[in-house]
Amino acid sequence: MYKVKVYVTLRESVLDPQGAAVKGSLHSLGYGTVEEVRIGKYMELFLDEKTENVEKVVKEMCEKLLANPVIEDYRFEIEEGVVQ
Amino acid sequence: MYKVKVYVTLRESVLDPQGAAVKGSLHSLGYGTVEEVRIGKYMELFLDEKTENVEKVVKEMCEKLLANPVIEDYRFEIEEGVVQ
Repeated sequence: MYKVKVYVTLRESVLDPQGAAVKGSLHSLGYGTVEEVRIGKYMELFLDEKTENVEKVVKEMCEKLLANPVIEDYRFEIEEGVVQ
Repeated sequence: MYKVKVYVTLRESVLDPQGAAVKGSLHSLGYGTVEEVRIGKYMELFLDEKTENVEKVVKEMCEKLLANPVIEDYRFEIEEGVVQ
């Protein structure tokens, strides 16, 4: 089995209102040294070991569904031989 | 400046309907070898370099706000001396 860890983040230039809200809450809780918060997604995919061209396939899945390439960046790591 | 990467994931035993929906969509797109998808959050926090006890402080922030310890696990990595 392949385990793929996918990280999706908003591009630098895109405003992150959710991150701003979390930063505000952290300040309210007394953590005033928090200067910025950016929120993204972390996904774990488990692929059957029969999957071919895993890297190409995961890139396609990111481009088509998992990330919005207009406003988001993504990166991923593939681990082979994972027992779930 | 400290850069902290926080990963929040649903506990193993907790159902992940969002992950199930993404898995269904991936199957519809022809990626039938996807066996499971789990969706979590990835957060980047930037803390002022004057912050003391960074590890303790980040742990507190996770427990109080960033994660729900009842249904989620979290882990984090701290990088020092980051220039934003």
